[in-house]
Amino acid sequence: MKVVNVEEILTALDEDAALAAVESGFKRYSAGQTQVSPVLHLGFTEPPGDCHVKAAAVAGDEVFVVKLATGFYRNPELNLPTSNGFMAVISARNGEILALLHDQGHLTDQRTAMAGAIAARAIVRPGSSTLGIVGAGTQARLQAKLIKRLLGLESVLIWARNGKRASALASEVRGEAVSLDDLCARADLIVTTTPSTEPLLGVDMIKRGTRIVAVGADSPGKRELDPRILARGRTIVDSIAQCVDHGEAGWAVRAGLIEASSLIELGTLLDAPVAFLPDDIVVADLTGVAIQDFEIAKSVWRRLQSGARV
Amino acid sequence: MKVVNVEEILTALDEDAALAAVESGFKRYSAGQTQVSPVLHLGFTEPPGDCHVKAAAVAGDEVFVVKLATGFYRNPELNLPTSNGFMAVISARNGEILALLHDQGHLTDQRTAMAGAIAARAIVRPGSSTLGIVGAGTQARLQAKLIKRLLGLESVLIWARNGKRASALASEVRGEAVSLDDLCARADLIVTTTPSTEPLLGVDMIKRGTRIVAVGADSPGKRELDPRILARGRTIVDSIAQCVDHGEAGWAVRAGLIEASSLIELGTLLDAPVAFLPDDIVVADLTGVAIQDFEIAKSVWRRLQSGARV
Repeated sequence: MKVVNVEEILTALDEDAALAAVESGFKRYSAGQTQVSPVLHLGFTEPPGDCHVKAAAVAGDEVFVVKLATGFYRNPELNLPTSNGFMAVISARNGEILALLHDQGHLTDQRTAMAGAIAARAIVRPGSSTLGIVGAGTQARLQAKLIKRLLGLESVLIWARNGKRASALASEVRGEAVSLDDLCARADLIVTTTPSTEPLLGVDMIKRGTRIVAVGADSPGKRELDPRILARGRTIVDSIAQCVDHGEAGWAVRAGLIEASSLIELGTLLDAPVAFLPDDIVVADLTGVAIQDFEIAKSVWRRLQSGARV
Repeated sequence: MKVVNVEEILTALDEDAALAAVESGFKRYSAGQTQVSPVLHLGFTEPPGDCHVKAAAVAGDEVFVVKLATGFYRNPELNLPTSNGFMAVISARNGEILALLHDQGHLTDQRTAMAGAIAARAIVRPGSSTLGIVGAGTQARLQAKLIKRLLGLESVLIWARNGKRASALASEVRGEAVSLDDLCARADLIVTTTPSTEPLLGVDMIKRGTRIVAVGADSPGKRELDPRILARGRTIVDSIAQCVDHGEAGWAVRAGLIEASSLIELGTLLDAPVAFLPDDIVVADLTGVAIQDFEIAKSVWRRLQSGARV
């Protein structure tokens, strides 16, 4: 068992290779070629925290991946990062633990940003120039940088509840901190990255043709969008099962605003692109699927195997 | 994150301290003081194998434990052990991975044997002298040695389908390889340790007063006892939920031979001993509960913390 620390992991991570792997993972997931287990969960109240374990395998692959992730929400008060954990790369031939990537949450951050970028690329309107980012945390920063680069967007608008953090992120990504109304009025593509449990984007704030990637609703109770936004357009989901259970799509389905049968999985869309109309509102609802962990961990592990300098 | 290898783990393992911890864990589990997650599972067919993740926390404890265990059943053909995996000891204060006990299945073997010994001690008839072990694998060896020592039994009888392995184990534990009928006729306490999917012990083979610890039925489809044996006596279970789902008790409940409400959890029995009659047939049905992993991993981790020579 090789134990690999964060610095080695981030050095070995090839962003383009991992992006391609995660994109291919979504396709294999939607094609039914993967085994994704229900999430294992432990919850803590004092201090508040949780532990999730996710696991995924791909039919015929030489390895499978189990990810353990912790989140302890008062850690910043102790000058500790909120997230911790590892991804284990395990032989599907003999069960040996080949590598323990002690990523302390960084690979989850990266694969979540990559999923956002892949979804953005799949739904963006040709000719788009302006990216709006809702939130100013880790995902806001990673998604702003990756999507701007990948889609060649010219300008980035940032809104966050905390104006100082919004301004700091805006200057970091050479963007502009604006009001949420302004952001919605000007952005061609909006990425929401907050842990909100109430809708931040109202239905009347969203103009025709807007494309939205929502990554905040990763567990029950979370939501960033008025569900009527989904009723006005098309909804793409990373996993029908997960999004109906705890994504933005779930709120809209439970409210009777959309049918679960109308949802299109990202992997299906990537394999068979849909010609959205310029005026369509399109929402990509991303809850995070274990196949993303499989793909990014395997991508890093293969680079380490092939002797990448670490 | 401290990574601890098998040799260090087995050196640090204090059998008596771990036994006491596992016993206390059963009590806390049955008293509702623990959080035990549903098991995460991935299965493989070519080659046949599986991966289980179990997790447990105790209210107010400074750590929690997540165990990953793999089993690849053709490994012996490759001169590899069937089992592999690790137990992670994680801070319940901040989510940090404190120690990764890379036990490769050995702590699971140990805690399973300890559960057998704890159950045997709780149900054994005073004056017992003869232990019968069904099977000749790792659990057969560990349980024979531990129970003989702990209960001060004088003689050990071994039966296994493979006569050579039975004789080898018998000579290792200074016991006697016998027929299964002989074993049932002579043993005061029988421990069944096989992966059988068909009953090995028939109802007519079991004499009055026999006490049985059944550890083989750890997943759906497995069974070692004719369910009518349970109907003739009292049944103790490590976990009502798990045993009704996939233990020996489940077969008897589904056959309408016993009521789930008649089952007594081991932790309850340890806290409030039941006065069994000498003639009672008593079965302890053990499926393996994550609290055992928590207790043995924490016990090893504390010894490592306290600077035990490793």
